[in-house]
Amino acid sequence: MNNSEFYSASPKEVRRLIRSGALTGQTSGMCAGYAQANLCILPKEQAFDFLLFCTRNPRPCPLLEVGDCGSREIKEMAFGADVARDIPKYRIWRGGSLEAEVTDISDIWRDDFVYFLIGCSFSFEAELLEAGIPVRHIEEGRNVPMFNTNIPLKSAGAFGGNMVVSMRPIPHELVMKAVSVTAAMPRVHGAPVHIGDPSLIGISDIASPDYGDSVTIKKGEVPVFWPCGVTPQNVLMNSKPPFAVTHAPGHMFITDVKNHELKY
Amino acid sequence: MNNSEFYSASPKEVRRLIRSGALTGQTSGMCAGYAQANLCILPKEQAFDFLLFCTRNPRPCPLLEVGDCGSREIKEMAFGADVARDIPKYRIWRGGSLEAEVTDISDIWRDDFVYFLIGCSFSFEAELLEAGIPVRHIEEGRNVPMFNTNIPLKSAGAFGGNMVVSMRPIPHELVMKAVSVTAAMPRVHGAPVHIGDPSLIGISDIASPDYGDSVTIKKGEVPVFWPCGVTPQNVLMNSKPPFAVTHAPGHMFITDVKNHELKY
Repeated sequence: MNNSEFYSASPKEVRRLIRSGALTGQTSGMCAGYAQANLCILPKEQAFDFLLFCTRNPRPCPLLEVGDCGSREIKEMAFGADVARDIPKYRIWRGGSLEAEVTDISDIWRDDFVYFLIGCSFSFEAELLEAGIPVRHIEEGRNVPMFNTNIPLKSAGAFGGNMVVSMRPIPHELVMKAVSVTAAMPRVHGAPVHIGDPSLIGISDIASPDYGDSVTIKKGEVPVFWPCGVTPQNVLMNSKPPFAVTHAPGHMFITDVKNHELKY
Repeated sequence: MNNSEFYSASPKEVRRLIRSGALTGQTSGMCAGYAQANLCILPKEQAFDFLLFCTRNPRPCPLLEVGDCGSREIKEMAFGADVARDIPKYRIWRGGSLEAEVTDISDIWRDDFVYFLIGCSFSFEAELLEAGIPVRHIEEGRNVPMFNTNIPLKSAGAFGGNMVVSMRPIPHELVMKAVSVTAAMPRVHGAPVHIGDPSLIGISDIASPDYGDSVTIKKGEVPVFWPCGVTPQNVLMNSKPPFAVTHAPGHMFITDVKNHELKY
């Protein structure tokens, strides 16, 4: 994708184009400096356990905002935005199976729906780049490599499993800087969960990610692993809830909050 | 109260005495160094909104642990403890009115109950003392003075209102140190919400606290205000839930987690 024409656009303007149906693609590279968020929507019946799950596992599931039961209105992250129309592509799931991909869910919205906006590593990648730390998958125009691990999560009701991590190869002399930069941003996953040997967290082949694309690891670079926002979606789908909505991969909610502000 | 004989006792031993009925008094000063927690118990029907409320207002309502629906077992804060028997005194509320004070709620426990353990300023007071900062109400053998304020909270469902704060007079040259010490402990309220002039947060008379006792403010001292764990109980009671259980004031849950560990 090439979103360079929206690099400097305001989130409000981009969300307007998304709502009108003019933009339906991935949001990577849009509205530079502003946080983008993962979306999960569940009926209230499942929402308590999912909220509990996220509260117990804030590293992979950092909650940016959770809606009141039945409310489509976003307040904190983008005042007045509509969670049912302002995301370019949604996935509708029944019993854990993908039923449809749509660009608007206002027609199927129900009074018992609860939305969850969850922090995304796009936010800390912007800070890594600012700090002079290369982000390989951006350089190579690929999706970040993501892996299933053996790191257990704290379960809640039907929700449980292991952590999914994203991997970025970091020049060894910049690893501590990358830790410091991301540790300061706990609302978007925070510090790495692991540095170095992938086998210690149950990853057998660093060249074969479970999600996303493989990237080059150069001589002198160390693989560094961060908690990944795919974790909550994965956990959600594994529990095969009767009904759920998520964003389509890469089609995120663009907030009015600067990445920088997520430090506080 | 004088709990000096339990000052160095282990939390496990004290909880055993509480469970047996041998200890039914306040827990202040017991098990030095270990965190104590506030308790709220709600049926699942109200628990989602209360969990959401705490998530939205982490400063006054820092969640230390939330139970699975129906579970009495504590896992993180004191492995194997029983939330229905290991607190010295409980208050049972119906429709917002106090119905009874009891020392055991195992006979009324229901499968839809959810417990909330919420961080308590006892934890950061220990750290203030360690840092050489005086804590007046401890010196004077009183309860900390607490005040209603005009600081609005983010509401969730039936739960909303203003923040309750606790006040400690701090020598002016130690105020920044007190901020730093407590800012490092976000799981037990974190940094102050206000320093100085009480009228700016809606407190008309610093000598007349709404809860707890008045304490001496000496020349050269500044009143410093922290978010207070009375907030969630207040908000809970104001919503007049059909049924709720809380700890009786000062009769806290003593955890196996050191105050020090709440920094991480």
